Amino acid sequence: MPEGTPDVVPTDGLTTRQRRHRPLTIINTGTGKGKTTAAFGTALRGWNQGWSIAVFQFVKSDKWHIGEKSALQALGRVHDQTGEGGPVEWHVMGSGWSWKRKPGAPDDHQALAVEGWQEIKRRLAAEEHTLYVLDEFTYPVKWGWLDLDDIVTTLTERPGFQHVIITGRDADPRLIEIADLVTEMTKIKHPFDAGQKGQKGIEW
Amino acid sequence: MPEGTPDVVPTDGLTTRQRRHRPLTIINTGTGKGKTTAAFGTALRGWNQGWSIAVFQFVKSDKWHIGEKSALQALGRVHDQTGEGGPVEWHVMGSGWSWKRKPGAPDDHQALAVEGWQEIKRRLAAEEHTLYVLDEFTYPVKWGWLDLDDIVTTLTERPGFQHVIITGRDADPRLIEIADLVTEMTKIKHPFDAGQKGQKGIEW
Repeated sequence: MPEGTPDVVPTDGLTTRQRRHRPLTIINTGTGKGKTTAAFGTALRGWNQGWSIAVFQFVKSDKWHIGEKSALQALGRVHDQTGEGGPVEWHVMGSGWSWKRKPGAPDDHQALAVEGWQEIKRRLAAEEHTLYVLDEFTYPVKWGWLDLDDIVTTLTERPGFQHVIITGRDADPRLIEIADLVTEMTKIKHPFDAGQKGQKGIEW
Repeated sequence: MPEGTPDVVPTDGLTTRQRRHRPLTIINTGTGKGKTTAAFGTALRGWNQGWSIAVFQFVKSDKWHIGEKSALQALGRVHDQTGEGGPVEWHVMGSGWSWKRKPGAPDDHQALAVEGWQEIKRRLAAEEHTLYVLDEFTYPVKWGWLDLDDIVTTLTERPGFQHVIITGRDADPRLIEIADLVTEMTKIKHPFDAGQKGQKGIEW
């Protein structure tokens, strides 16, 4: 239910208005479901505010989260056609990010992850979007593919008003430390426990 | 990451295909954020499958989840205009459900909650939708406003292929018992801890 009252009054010298409109770093982690779906649910709110939204999926398969992708891209088209809501960009790592399609590029996932992060860093510096969803971003961090110092510095010092949502299991403690809002999703009960397989509309 | 392999093979006599396409009762509970946003994220998947989606918000304010409401209603219009995705209905309890606007009706929230549940029950019996989101439904249950026996029986025996997602804190153990998928959202860190107030695009 409504949660508008802070527990403590901060002594950071900011006005309530300044504090209210502060860019957030949000992490959805844990082994349960809902990390990514909650991120895209938040993206719906941002869309309604007219925010420029960019999703970067650090996954191999184009089919991952195809439902959310189709729906958010449809909302992006609504914006382009009617001006309602905000624009939406959706980039999947897959076998090569959409902004740089090199035919015959090697299937080097570490290099692709680095390239993805460099692009995000460039856009943050240029203040290109209001909401960045870095989906499954904890994994290339966990695997040591990306420079965590660079990520921490970049996110901490990013300019302007840009929200960043990171999803994935096993978020690094240093990411959690710099985040403003961290939620852990825990499985209480899951159909797979009873032998159920994934099904369309629910799992993708 | 992909989670397609069941831990055990069930002995319920169903084929994998039958088991795969089984209606689910899903509960997002806990004191953290993301319960409702994850439900609407799942709704994006259902929309992309062309499902008929109906949201019932058991809240007093029309402004609650206005961002998700606007975005999902925009997707509903995309469906109506182009045939892409599925139709979306959105009903808020507020001071009276949209299907029954009685001017001057008493502001009796228990009566409204009962009326909302009766309408959902009627639609489940008629198999009107494929995905029902019962947002904040745990509260009228917790407050004893609704007949839990009736809810358990209705959900357990509902006909056809209809998914139901219930959100809210303190889900009753009997609801958890009949659910297929239960996720608990736990707050690890929240901006309100540091004196931050809610802000648009994030909280609504």
